[in-house]
Amino acid sequence: MKPQIKRTLSNFFFEYETPRQVLVRNKRVAVVCRLIQMGVLAYIIGWVFMYEKGYQAIDIAIGSVLTKMKGVSFTNISQKERIWDAADFVFPEQGGSSFVVMTNYIATVGQKQDKCPELPDGKNKNKCVTDQDCDEGKYKRTGNGHMTGKCISNTSTCEIYSWCPVEDDRQIPDPPVLLTAENYTLFIKNSITFRQFNVVRSNLVESVNQSYISTCLYHPKTDPLCPIFRLGDIVERSGFNFSDIALVGGAVGVLIDWDCNLDLSIRYCKPKYEFCGLYGTGKNEREEKASLGYNFRYAKYYVENGVEKRTLMKVFGVRIDIIVHGRAGKFDIIPTFTAIGSGVGIFGVATVVCDLLLLYLVPKRDFYKNMKFKHTEIPEEKPALPQSQTEKDVPKLWSQ
Amino acid sequence: MKPQIKRTLSNFFFEYETPRQVLVRNKRVAVVCRLIQMGVLAYIIGWVFMYEKGYQAIDIAIGSVLTKMKGVSFTNISQKERIWDAADFVFPEQGGSSFVVMTNYIATVGQKQDKCPELPDGKNKNKCVTDQDCDEGKYKRTGNGHMTGKCISNTSTCEIYSWCPVEDDRQIPDPPVLLTAENYTLFIKNSITFRQFNVVRSNLVESVNQSYISTCLYHPKTDPLCPIFRLGDIVERSGFNFSDIALVGGAVGVLIDWDCNLDLSIRYCKPKYEFCGLYGTGKNEREEKASLGYNFRYAKYYVENGVEKRTLMKVFGVRIDIIVHGRAGKFDIIPTFTAIGSGVGIFGVATVVCDLLLLYLVPKRDFYKNMKFKHTEIPEEKPALPQSQTEKDVPKLWSQ
Amino acid sequence: MKPQIKRTLSNFFFEYETPRQVLVRNKRVAVVCRLIQMGVLAYIIGWVFMYEKGYQAIDIAIGSVLTKMKGVSFTNISQKERIWDAADFVFPEQGGSSFVVMTNYIATVGQKQDKCPELPDGKNKNKCVTDQDCDEGKYKRTGNGHMTGKCISNTSTCEIYSWCPVEDDRQIPDPPVLLTAENYTLFIKNSITFRQFNVVRSNLVESVNQSYISTCLYHPKTDPLCPIFRLGDIVERSGFNFSDIALVGGAVGVLIDWDCNLDLSIRYCKPKYEFCGLYGTGKNEREEKASLGYNFRYAKYYVENGVEKRTLMKVFGVRIDIIVHGRAGKFDIIPTFTAIGSGVGIFGVATVVCDLLLLYLVPKRDFYKNMKFKHTEIPEEKPALPQSQTEKDVPKLWSQ
Repeated sequence: MKPQIKRTLSNFFFEYETPRQVLVRNKRVAVVCRLIQMGVLAYIIGWVFMYEKGYQAIDIAIGSVLTKMKGVSFTNISQKERIWDAADFVFPEQGGSSFVVMTNYIATVGQKQDKCPELPDGKNKNKCVTDQDCDEGKYKRTGNGHMTGKCISNTSTCEIYSWCPVEDDRQIPDPPVLLTAENYTLFIKNSITFRQFNVVRSNLVESVNQSYISTCLYHPKTDPLCPIFRLGDIVERSGFNFSDIALVGGAVGVLIDWDCNLDLSIRYCKPKYEFCGLYGTGKNEREEKASLGYNFRYAKYYVENGVEKRTLMKVFGVRIDIIVHGRAGKFDIIPTFTAIGSGVGIFGVATVVCDLLLLYLVPKRDFYKNMKFKHTEIPEEKPALPQSQTEKDVPKLWSQ
Repeated sequence: MKPQIKRTLSNFFFEYETPRQVLVRNKRVAVVCRLIQMGVLAYIIGWVFMYEKGYQAIDIAIGSVLTKMKGVSFTNISQKERIWDAADFVFPEQGGSSFVVMTNYIATVGQKQDKCPELPDGKNKNKCVTDQDCDEGKYKRTGNGHMTGKCISNTSTCEIYSWCPVEDDRQIPDPPVLLTAENYTLFIKNSITFRQFNVVRSNLVESVNQSYISTCLYHPKTDPLCPIFRLGDIVERSGFNFSDIALVGGAVGVLIDWDCNLDLSIRYCKPKYEFCGLYGTGKNEREEKASLGYNFRYAKYYVENGVEKRTLMKVFGVRIDIIVHGRAGKFDIIPTFTAIGSGVGIFGVATVVCDLLLLYLVPKRDFYKNMKFKHTEIPEEKPALPQSQTEKDVPKLWSQ
Repeated sequence: MKPQIKRTLSNFFFEYETPRQVLVRNKRVAVVCRLIQMGVLAYIIGWVFMYEKGYQAIDIAIGSVLTKMKGVSFTNISQKERIWDAADFVFPEQGGSSFVVMTNYIATVGQKQDKCPELPDGKNKNKCVTDQDCDEGKYKRTGNGHMTGKCISNTSTCEIYSWCPVEDDRQIPDPPVLLTAENYTLFIKNSITFRQFNVVRSNLVESVNQSYISTCLYHPKTDPLCPIFRLGDIVERSGFNFSDIALVGGAVGVLIDWDCNLDLSIRYCKPKYEFCGLYGTGKNEREEKASLGYNFRYAKYYVENGVEKRTLMKVFGVRIDIIVHGRAGKFDIIPTFTAIGSGVGIFGVATVVCDLLLLYLVPKRDFYKNMKFKHTEIPEEKPALPQSQTEKDVPKLWSQ
């Protein structure tokens, strides 16, 4: 057995198979074939490799965002002067990636637990005529409290047990109370991590130093890397009108887009800021405007003369969601080989297409068929001994 | 040189190579081969293209969520009536994607900075007999304050400097105080952006208009697109029992799943809502229930007679995490070519398998081997002149 | 026609094509070819399949995080003893994935809406000499309120309408007030969902039971699965010095990394905790330190003698972002076939390379060229009748 194994091994190592080819001299088919092959090559090199960077492994960033609003507003409502600073108008105060800047509000001062009439609404949903209309202990989906079972005649609404007086939000202050919010500035600190490549990067890139930050203001053309944004600019750039959004509130996305090629120097890995309106009040007109505005309520509790009270605030404002979208590519052997392997596979498609042309469409197709294919038919009478290929073909030929 | 270059070029363009093939007439092998090829074809067309939509480029959505809870609860604890509205029971109030709805609480009213005995716990960890058991200035990991060094005899615990009186959370109110939270409703607004395809979409799709929203309630069968959810339904659908979770708290995930085929009209891109219990209190029984419940503490500060006091609330509730999972596919040339290229590659596997059958398992394998392979052995005595292939084979044949 | 269709079908099923091959006996080329092929095979099996697990479909986790800080601090500032517990030093209190632990603060007690002089800053930006320097009704970007138009002589700054007195944050308390925050503990509950594989998993894995949790403390070597972390450890492990970060604040990322092979038992799917400094104050020295520290302001409002007042807190602290990064792989037929298909494609590259060697570099290349290629040139005078391949070749030969 041993010498045979040896021979098999030596055959394996000293011989290799390569397919036999027919060189077809047919101009039309050849030109078509070469064009397809060159198209495939151009696609693989130009598109997959150059444009889509198919030789790179991709990593998606993990991001973290810190924000800080600055600004002061001054209001003078019914002779009451008041100043508002960031601690007053930003919710929540911690400076995360999602927060609200108050631009308008309805304050209901001094609510306490009591009985009072429900608010009449325009659609007569809360209307009552007799006490029978007010089920004791029930409450309505749009109501503010538990019905006591009484119908108050002068408002024509049920009496409820609730925080009284009930908030009246039928009229939104117009113009918005804090219209000067337009001039507030937002400072964004964003850090991203590409775990796979062990790269950490901040939006305060090399050219953004302390002195630049203290004076700059973001502008897409002149200051595209300045991390300080004017609130009015953010809103306008996302397609809203500031006074509209200030009135009823709205949501805006600030997108920080990182598209880094880590085969180049890390210095070229820079953020790009984009702004978009969320929830269909902005540029995008494709969706029906089913639910506009943005508001929420919060309460400040206090005790007055032993009675727990609260000031209920219905806050309208600009909700800002800072969304980080990071993507980095770096040369890697696996995607490269996958792209090449896939490319070689597509190359095969060219041959398949040209063979179809050659064998089915060209006038002399039968001639080419004979060149390309060879039939095996074992002659019945002959023992199937090992015999060289031509040994069998040629006699057949000559016997004709 | 020039005419040679010309000839080479014309050869390149007017000639193309196509492999020479043997047509093997062997029923068994051929059938196997065709079946494998058809299997590969069915897999590529049926699975990769039709089912997995391998011809599509994929983009993952960037999502943004706004929420609003509505509802009122009425409690009557020791003859003290109280109404609770959204501003009282939702934390935080801004209406983001993660928030807590209070269902139960332990309030410790009027805490002030003082000395008081530590709370005795069931496991005797805080127990002391003499002053030596209480290290002055130290505090225990589970303790509530700095030990003063004294042991209070009537509670058998150390005296501590702390917010006094110390919160006693050994007994959770049962039934939960705000069991009616079951009927609260949650309104979810969700906007997603597929950046790669420049598509923005909201969960208030075409069929969800203002009048529908004002009356509908989500139901997986009858109202699968209504963005208003009953809290009790959310909890039950995620596998919890509402009264259990209301007692000790728990975390629930609301998954908004977008699986969009952007080759179709955008109208078919609709959200699907799913509910799941987080942290092992829900349906999933595979994990050990090491830590149940969900609660947090917060304090409302106030000043009474010049002394800073606080009301400490230990809040038990349903924490709701709204998780957006968006994925869109759209026809793209690169994944299509990659899939085809890979498919052609796999096609090659069929030929390899059949060749193995043909050359090693079929009885007449030697015959086929001769048909398929041609050995090159350069005759030593002859000069290696260019000679046609048959020129060499045929003489050998005839010399036999 | 029918019998012809039948024959075509039977031909299709009972015949298959396999390329004709030349077995080239050339040691150098063969060895090169075999080495390339073995390299490709090793790459596909070893790297793509074993190491990168190319046979697995990948899913990215959806994660949810609950946290709870515990700890007590005792301060004694100007003879005023005070105890701080979690309700006092964690912002926000709900226990989400991103929160701040206060380590230092500047409190401005009893601010009310009034007129007072602006704070003098070191850079003379707020300085004024005469009333002309103070534009009535304007405010400066770094200012705290609306200027009334007066210049106050004893501070040399403009008078402003603002929350008065203005916060003086020029001096940060050093050492930080709550330096003992180092000993606080953080409990993290993390749940991840692999939607594609329908797997839910919590960081309280099998070996982490209730009794273990009550005593353990995370340590990368001895307790890598304990979900309780000392704040000081987190900060130090992310490359900061705790007393530095406690003074001016900073941001720290806690990364929970899940890399699960779901072909194995779910028990091996365990979290790995990592810590990293965000925003360039940590280990990473590549970026310029343009903006250090982390702080935010919040206000506690109250009413005193009918006047609304607030206590403004400038809070410095450790902001902790808990980032979940989950990835699971499971055997799937599509990536397997894609990898194989791509591999077969790359195999083709070996043949291409060896053919180039054989046909252009080997001395006897012309001989091999003749073996491999066959030219088709249709003899002009003969009709292109179907004829067997050798039928055409041999006469040509013999006619020479």
